[in-house]
Amino acid sequence: MDLVARCICNALWLSHALRRDSCIHIVAYGRPNPPVVISFYGEALRDVSPDERNIAAWIKNVLAAKRKNPGIAVRKISFQMLIEELASKGAIFYVLHEKGRDISTVELKEDSVFVLGDHLGLPRNEEKFVARFAHEKISLGTSSYLASHCITVLHYELDRKYQ
Amino acid sequence: MDLVARCICNALWLSHALRRDSCIHIVAYGRPNPPVVISFYGEALRDVSPDERNIAAWIKNVLAAKRKNPGIAVRKISFQMLIEELASKGAIFYVLHEKGRDISTVELKEDSVFVLGDHLGLPRNEEKFVARFAHEKISLGTSSYLASHCITVLHYELDRKYQ
Repeated sequence: MDLVARCICNALWLSHALRRDSCIHIVAYGRPNPPVVISFYGEALRDVSPDERNIAAWIKNVLAAKRKNPGIAVRKISFQMLIEELASKGAIFYVLHEKGRDISTVELKEDSVFVLGDHLGLPRNEEKFVARFAHEKISLGTSSYLASHCITVLHYELDRKYQ
Repeated sequence: MDLVARCICNALWLSHALRRDSCIHIVAYGRPNPPVVISFYGEALRDVSPDERNIAAWIKNVLAAKRKNPGIAVRKISFQMLIEELASKGAIFYVLHEKGRDISTVELKEDSVFVLGDHLGLPRNEEKFVARFAHEKISLGTSSYLASHCITVLHYELDRKYQ
């Protein structure tokens, strides 16, 4: 849960503001009722602070239907269903992969979708599934970063390009 | 405390390893006994995991002298004493500043010392003090990032340069 909360923080927070143009989908295959997709939308999020405890408490409360937040959605869909949904909206997928093309040579689109695995990487089946759609494998260099750090770096690369 | 823990995580952790060549000093001016400098050294750190709770627990335990860790030191010195100490070892200071030179045009040294303020920035007195020594003001672009995110980005820029 702390890993997930760190990823959400890094995907949506700036110093004094939220990234209103960004969202993050967490695909959770843990017990008790997998799969669940938990989505945080910067444009609608309210009353959440960027610390792990607060983000984790929100996830638990929304999963248990104890609280609602217009910027948090929980759905009983799989990774592949999520990918299909995003592809149908025209997404181009950038899959983080140590053997991917170096990011400095890739033409990132402003409305990119980045696909990151956990510390074990993306399961092979899921990687193959994403490859059915418009996609590219990209790498952030020779260092192996925590998933949450990759998100910070990807935002930084997009910020440098589009601001 | 959660902000401090996030900064420490981002300064020292890679995906499956610690950054053994890095350290971070936190200068704390809060109660009850300011100032305190809490230092985490990647080369000697043991038994700490990268989540905020674990890092925060370690800080509290070391401050209260309940536990020891060869990679964590606590000292009753001020910001200016720390800067003098680092300068005497030959440090070049890069002060994160929104009006600084863009990082893409700066020749970063591999053994750089980066100086970051909290969400209010570095106090003016302390900024002036650092300016007595070899230093440069640098900027990460037009976005205003959380201090913890700046650390991730600075490591990324150094990794790209030196790996």
